[in-house]
Amino acid sequence: MFDQTNEIKVLRDPIHGYIHISYQVIWKLLNSSEFQRLRRIHQLGGDYMVYHTAEHSRFSHSLGVYEIVRRMIDEVESIATNVTQFEKIQVMCAALLHDIGHGPFSHMFEHLHNRTHEEMTVRIILDENTQVHQILRDCHPELPEKVVSIIQHEHEKEFLNQMISSQLDADRMDYLLRDAYETGTSYGNFDLERILRTLRVHDGYLCMKESGMHSVEDYIMARYHMYWQVYLHPDAKAYEILILKFIERYKSVHKTCTIPVFEPFCEKEFSLQQYLLLDDNRVMYGFQEAQFSKDEILSDLAYRILNRRLLDWIENPSEEEEIAIKRSSKNAEYYYYEEHSLNKQVMPYQELSESQTIWILSACGQIHPLSKCSEIVKALLKMENVTKKRIYFQKND
Amino acid sequence: MFDQTNEIKVLRDPIHGYIHISYQVIWKLLNSSEFQRLRRIHQLGGDYMVYHTAEHSRFSHSLGVYEIVRRMIDEVESIATNVTQFEKIQVMCAALLHDIGHGPFSHMFEHLHNRTHEEMTVRIILDENTQVHQILRDCHPELPEKVVSIIQHEHEKEFLNQMISSQLDADRMDYLLRDAYETGTSYGNFDLERILRTLRVHDGYLCMKESGMHSVEDYIMARYHMYWQVYLHPDAKAYEILILKFIERYKSVHKTCTIPVFEPFCEKEFSLQQYLLLDDNRVMYGFQEAQFSKDEILSDLAYRILNRRLLDWIENPSEEEEIAIKRSSKNAEYYYYEEHSLNKQVMPYQELSESQTIWILSACGQIHPLSKCSEIVKALLKMENVTKKRIYFQKND
Amino acid sequence: MFDQTNEIKVLRDPIHGYIHISYQVIWKLLNSSEFQRLRRIHQLGGDYMVYHTAEHSRFSHSLGVYEIVRRMIDEVESIATNVTQFEKIQVMCAALLHDIGHGPFSHMFEHLHNRTHEEMTVRIILDENTQVHQILRDCHPELPEKVVSIIQHEHEKEFLNQMISSQLDADRMDYLLRDAYETGTSYGNFDLERILRTLRVHDGYLCMKESGMHSVEDYIMARYHMYWQVYLHPDAKAYEILILKFIERYKSVHKTCTIPVFEPFCEKEFSLQQYLLLDDNRVMYGFQEAQFSKDEILSDLAYRILNRRLLDWIENPSEEEEIAIKRSSKNAEYYYYEEHSLNKQVMPYQELSESQTIWILSACGQIHPLSKCSEIVKALLKMENVTKKRIYFQKND
Amino acid sequence: MFDQTNEIKVLRDPIHGYIHISYQVIWKLLNSSEFQRLRRIHQLGGDYMVYHTAEHSRFSHSLGVYEIVRRMIDEVESIATNVTQFEKIQVMCAALLHDIGHGPFSHMFEHLHNRTHEEMTVRIILDENTQVHQILRDCHPELPEKVVSIIQHEHEKEFLNQMISSQLDADRMDYLLRDAYETGTSYGNFDLERILRTLRVHDGYLCMKESGMHSVEDYIMARYHMYWQVYLHPDAKAYEILILKFIERYKSVHKTCTIPVFEPFCEKEFSLQQYLLLDDNRVMYGFQEAQFSKDEILSDLAYRILNRRLLDWIENPSEEEEIAIKRSSKNAEYYYYEEHSLNKQVMPYQELSESQTIWILSACGQIHPLSKCSEIVKALLKMENVTKKRIYFQKND
Repeated sequence: MFDQTNEIKVLRDPIHGYIHISYQVIWKLLNSSEFQRLRRIHQLGGDYMVYHTAEHSRFSHSLGVYEIVRRMIDEVESIATNVTQFEKIQVMCAALLHDIGHGPFSHMFEHLHNRTHEEMTVRIILDENTQVHQILRDCHPELPEKVVSIIQHEHEKEFLNQMISSQLDADRMDYLLRDAYETGTSYGNFDLERILRTLRVHDGYLCMKESGMHSVEDYIMARYHMYWQVYLHPDAKAYEILILKFIERYKSVHKTCTIPVFEPFCEKEFSLQQYLLLDDNRVMYGFQEAQFSKDEILSDLAYRILNRRLLDWIENPSEEEEIAIKRSSKNAEYYYYEEHSLNKQVMPYQELSESQTIWILSACGQIHPLSKCSEIVKALLKMENVTKKRIYFQKND
Repeated sequence: MFDQTNEIKVLRDPIHGYIHISYQVIWKLLNSSEFQRLRRIHQLGGDYMVYHTAEHSRFSHSLGVYEIVRRMIDEVESIATNVTQFEKIQVMCAALLHDIGHGPFSHMFEHLHNRTHEEMTVRIILDENTQVHQILRDCHPELPEKVVSIIQHEHEKEFLNQMISSQLDADRMDYLLRDAYETGTSYGNFDLERILRTLRVHDGYLCMKESGMHSVEDYIMARYHMYWQVYLHPDAKAYEILILKFIERYKSVHKTCTIPVFEPFCEKEFSLQQYLLLDDNRVMYGFQEAQFSKDEILSDLAYRILNRRLLDWIENPSEEEEIAIKRSSKNAEYYYYEEHSLNKQVMPYQELSESQTIWILSACGQIHPLSKCSEIVKALLKMENVTKKRIYFQKND
Repeated sequence: MFDQTNEIKVLRDPIHGYIHISYQVIWKLLNSSEFQRLRRIHQLGGDYMVYHTAEHSRFSHSLGVYEIVRRMIDEVESIATNVTQFEKIQVMCAALLHDIGHGPFSHMFEHLHNRTHEEMTVRIILDENTQVHQILRDCHPELPEKVVSIIQHEHEKEFLNQMISSQLDADRMDYLLRDAYETGTSYGNFDLERILRTLRVHDGYLCMKESGMHSVEDYIMARYHMYWQVYLHPDAKAYEILILKFIERYKSVHKTCTIPVFEPFCEKEFSLQQYLLLDDNRVMYGFQEAQFSKDEILSDLAYRILNRRLLDWIENPSEEEEIAIKRSSKNAEYYYYEEHSLNKQVMPYQELSESQTIWILSACGQIHPLSKCSEIVKALLKMENVTKKRIYFQKND
Repeated sequence: MFDQTNEIKVLRDPIHGYIHISYQVIWKLLNSSEFQRLRRIHQLGGDYMVYHTAEHSRFSHSLGVYEIVRRMIDEVESIATNVTQFEKIQVMCAALLHDIGHGPFSHMFEHLHNRTHEEMTVRIILDENTQVHQILRDCHPELPEKVVSIIQHEHEKEFLNQMISSQLDADRMDYLLRDAYETGTSYGNFDLERILRTLRVHDGYLCMKESGMHSVEDYIMARYHMYWQVYLHPDAKAYEILILKFIERYKSVHKTCTIPVFEPFCEKEFSLQQYLLLDDNRVMYGFQEAQFSKDEILSDLAYRILNRRLLDWIENPSEEEEIAIKRSSKNAEYYYYEEHSLNKQVMPYQELSESQTIWILSACGQIHPLSKCSEIVKALLKMENVTKKRIYFQKND
């Protein structure tokens, strides 16, 4: 019923060996303008300023998520027998498109235009003028809505939602492996093969056979370490702060110091076409232009962004240190920043709701939350809350 | 003062790239009969009956421990500046020789002759007739005793002892990486490079810079996973039980069913030369001979060992199951076995004493136990004790 | 028709990720005494005396060959559609059993008993008393003969023969990858995934799509490098010479200096049961015993084998050097050895016959020998013959 | 004499583990605007349109070349003892800066402004206004000229030139390993460790010990395969053609269809500051703008570049095919392209001159060209010239 490619098309990929494509709709989506645009959005925002090789794009990651979902369906029998071909298409498209609405530098530019990337993802898929929408609709008239329902975690088959977004979803699995590979750290590695081998659907829920529990524990620890080593690295945050402050400054001076590529997003409304143009390249070009702005703060922030001149930082400063730093800060509104972090916030795993719980399928066919089965996880969930304060500031030299 | 090799000799090694040797004494030890014997002792006892590629020897592992110790000295400045050349030689020799007393199948044959491998290690190093002793003594008259003092954790420089045996020693580091590589599991991987980069000596103690704390957490979790996935695998235990029962049977029938290669070890005393002959090959030959024994139980156990006919097992059996199994067990003395395990016993890390604590060196130069610094470890140490019962038995078919 | 296992059984393997088993007959063969015996035969003879980590067995390798053949059938459509289920079973059994007749130290012990391992393989499969034979026969009465026909390259479907033995067979593919992994050299690596993706059956012959030609060139170079770096290493040869000379000496003194484990093989006939006992362990035990022989040469050779005291060697010696060495050689019959090697003999690839040619399938559906398509291979086949002489001898010190 | 950093600074790198920096001048260069700009230049031009993960920059590669050169000096004794500290600084700076003049998409934009990247590299290093120049000069007044002399292969110490540019230079070594890693192909792998271990300086020339010859052969084959699999991939060429044609079109219409970011480079002269702004981002922004150009060809080519709409191609077309294609080509000036390639042109190794020869140091201390020592290379150099014709065209659908 759904058109297949002549032969299975493969794309070489260092994480998965090959990405396998056998449906026309997937192939066409991959070639759409909106998907090709993801080549121009870095996966890790500014983290390549800390890990210099983390230069990969959301394009690669999206292909990876698709490939994991494809394998889940093709290799896990209890999934294969619980989906129709149409549902298979739905969830594979959702995997490929789950990040289609992302803008430059992760979530940073959401501060400029005040839309979330999830909102934009839905808009791109449902807007009749996008290539993505037309490809989906031509494949099946209900496909755009179905794909959106999975991305919004509202599909009637819960396990399809979980494959894309849950504590053990294809999204996280791909980015941990990929980010570990690209940064050159070993921390994000876990045993994907074993997880795929022990994954099951039971009563409509995604769960893991008990014999795969240790590989889940390993995966949770991989997440924990990647958070601390990569995603929450103080210097990565320092880079984000520069961008945040640039945006704040631009908003306050844009009437007199206009930079054309940013201007549409200061308006209340902007078109989808305008949004789709806003990729990393365009933004970096904007920073180049801002370097020549007559506003000194804007110009300085742009220079810092382009040339990696980060703010300094200290952790848990004493009261005296804090006062001294504040006192000596010029233009503190843009060059001083306080961050309070709770280690619990970045807990690798919490069981906050049923849908955000990893379920373990015991040998006797019963299903339990991971925290009831794993002594390690049980212990981790009792971890205490510790607050850390970090101050970013401009060193005077 | 200590003779060097003409040029640095290197041995290719998949874990460390190369093993580097630049002292004559190390090169000679490597070529001694007693060290070459380690080629004939499997590193993981019977685990290659579960992970078929885990066929590596204590020879490879011993070289690996040596190489890590060599790197600790050459690459960690605070170690390099705190040791004399003689001490460097001492600890490198101790690394190479720490397992020299090991017999076949890990600790299994200690049930036959009632000596620990540590005892045998000391004996081999101190006995004037061994090549190892002569090489050490020819290098420096006090070297044999110094090497023994490190292996017995009694050297006056505590950090030398810790390099060989502690919660973060070269022994564990090599075997985790090597066993992971050889079994093909990813679980044992951790970031050796970072650990070496953040290792320090402070007040005579080995410790880690705070910035290396996450790599230590990762290493502890690697240990935890290797324990559960490899070292404590129920089938590996099932294989050990066969050997244990064979030894028990042999002891009770050896007068009438003598197998020459085992016989010396039924005596109260045996010579070092006899002990050094007892390698995996000789023991396997003994099992081959035992297959033809007139004692049926001995013969059957030997057949099972050679052909991997393991006992079956169930976990946490119900009372009825247990009774039924016991009732149907023939020759239960040899074909029935109960095991009670506490998860705490295999805790990846516990702070039971000062010398078994991992110390963290804070930025301000103070030293704290890991459990005070790491929220993860703090949580893990609160893990509850859970008892598990496993019954091994002979299936009737 | 052919019994399947309850669920797919998997064995973790570092080369292939997992070995997948879904037929009862494969599972039973794996558990047979004759196959378990392969755990006790090193894959690379004495090469672990040069590459200390090359300690893997023919058991692991045989599983690997099976897995590659399984993938060829399951993943290459033109194979899958050209075999019956019975033929699939045949070739998978042949893959698993192709080395079942191997004895200790590669081909060395063939010098003692004058049988080739191929001959013994056939005998083990056809002898009605072996477990292997009974398992095959119980699966299908013609299976033992069919398996033998593939191993002897006489099956009516030529491509089945080629899967097991040809210039591009599963045997070579597994051992190159596995030996590279276990030695820690990178040389044996090639792109198995791409070869499997471009493999085809055409007119009953195994061939490669033109688009896979570069991966074949790469594979041929991998072979070339493994030959020079590992298989033909002078020190590995030096170890083999010790064993060869030991066997020669034993043959000439065995009447008076009997070593029981070797004795049966000095007779004209020996039983299959006797042969199946002869594994690496038994042979090493034999060397241990020989150390205590009253024949000094036999004892010395045994000591050298056990303790890696290799002969020295020089390459292309001058006439004077050669004379001097010969003159000073004591017991030259056992301690002097000349080797003449032709580089052509170890050519990674030659097109000596149709069945030993790699065939390339062009885009227009025609089939050509690799040498017609690959400029690299064309050039390599023109490589000149160069003779090298190496002399092994006992250094007097 | 030359300032060192407080402690060795390290940057995590997946190819080299860590990049080690211990001189202030290197650290400062790394932080210069001109070097940071390399983060915004893809290493492989448009190859990430074929290998989607090949998204790495010249920044990462330049660090890698630096690290290999650093290791050559620190680890190869005959290099270490033949350089002064100043020369060490010179060659490390040359390694870091050898690509500093590169513009977007490899050499493509040289068609726009008619300067080579080598010319620009020299200009950036010698221009008194660049940060790079000032940092070099502040370190030592002669340093800028010395660095340039190495990059131009004119330093009086030939082996310093060879470390940066020769048949076996750090540049090639890093890019083969890095491009293989980032594309996910195995072809570019070779044994860097062994090459470093067998590298020597002899009579002022870089050469390899004979025992490293096989690793050199392997490296040459790695280059050969990377050329065919990656660098010369027809689709990568197809992408380059789009950019080339865009530039040609722009040059002919720029007076009426001006795109500001490209305009300065249509002038005879442009400033260094203008050149340094021209990175991948700015160029991609230019393509975005060009999509809205009133010139339809320019707009279409820009759309194709941004959305990967490549021209089709066939290889060695028949005369009829060629005529038919030409006849149906609209705007053939921009949508039709013929390429003639000689396999010899991409030979992995040729001995065209003394300085482009790999020298082998024999055991007796003599030096020979590789082709005299390696049978493989000797054969390869006899490879015949084969011309291939490829036609790129616009498919009518």
